[in-house]
Amino acid sequence: MTQKIRFYFDFSSPYGYLATVRIDELARRHGRVVDWRPHLLGVAMKATGQSPLLNQPLRGAYAKRDLARMAQDFGVALVQPEVFPIHSVAASRAFYALKDDVEEQAVRLARQLFHAYWGEGRDISRPGDIAREADAIGMNGAVLIERMALLETRQRLRDEVDDAMQRGIFGSPMFDLDGELFWGCDKFDQMDRWLSAGGW
Amino acid sequence: MTQKIRFYFDFSSPYGYLATVRIDELARRHGRVVDWRPHLLGVAMKATGQSPLLNQPLRGAYAKRDLARMAQDFGVALVQPEVFPIHSVAASRAFYALKDDVEEQAVRLARQLFHAYWGEGRDISRPGDIAREADAIGMNGAVLIERMALLETRQRLRDEVDDAMQRGIFGSPMFDLDGELFWGCDKFDQMDRWLSAGGW
Repeated sequence: MTQKIRFYFDFSSPYGYLATVRIDELARRHGRVVDWRPHLLGVAMKATGQSPLLNQPLRGAYAKRDLARMAQDFGVALVQPEVFPIHSVAASRAFYALKDDVEEQAVRLARQLFHAYWGEGRDISRPGDIAREADAIGMNGAVLIERMALLETRQRLRDEVDDAMQRGIFGSPMFDLDGELFWGCDKFDQMDRWLSAGGW
Repeated sequence: MTQKIRFYFDFSSPYGYLATVRIDELARRHGRVVDWRPHLLGVAMKATGQSPLLNQPLRGAYAKRDLARMAQDFGVALVQPEVFPIHSVAASRAFYALKDDVEEQAVRLARQLFHAYWGEGRDISRPGDIAREADAIGMNGAVLIERMALLETRQRLRDEVDDAMQRGIFGSPMFDLDGELFWGCDKFDQMDRWLSAGGW
């Protein structure tokens, strides 16, 4: 059986957003399905000792230019949101509140949230923001808020974050292809070769 | 006039070594010349607040696997040297002691030093190590050691490192294509497209 491509990202990550533009094409070309898995970079950064890239001396300035170039290369608009960085806990809870029952809806919502924040600069950190974006794509935002608040949903996100850490996930995007991790939007060409060759 | 591709690296960086395997092919395909520029990651890391990647929690383990995969992809052997990390000051001084007068010799020596350290695991941190590797490719190691010790050579390395920092160089490898910085071995495919399109 062909395994899914596990796609790890954080909603506050611009590189995570850019990855959503190309991940489906990669998967389709290789007959794979994408398993979207938001995690929390803030938790990972405590373990790795990192701070948000865009705020780092030298590296932040480079990343801004790199993102602008990469967005053009990927053919997508990318803005610098006024509210930055944001907490991505609410967005991640909303995603996992839907994933098991209606995975397609979870992915649709994830795309809408990424687009709202990184494509149009709207804050997506508060539950009300999530509801607004859910309503905008014909989902029931009020019901979603209720599900986000459930203890079960909150625990689910904790478990997912723990599991990601156990698997060595520390960045956004990161991809798990049959147990091999690949980090960053720069990896699409190499992942394409890797999947074509069945490893090397 | 077609500008040179500035190729920044640190001799202690395995990704820097891997870049030497593909940089010439990239340049040739686009009618460019490569301008090799060793700098000192230790100095850059003071500014960026980073520590050596291979020693970082989670990120180090990933980088080891990434390096092994990338070395296979690039078709080159990569070992984990027993002495690691090393100071790359001596190697960098040796390079700049030659660059202005006999640039081709400087590049030949750089390739030998990278290969000695990352291809075969020999220490290249001490002047005597540099002389040994220089002798091995038919250069005069004893004369090279004398030139490395000159105040002029030492100052030259300091100036190069300052200049690199001014230009926003913080990693290895980094490439400057007509004022645009690209960071990492993962950028070869994107740089290829960028040079073909003349930017985008």
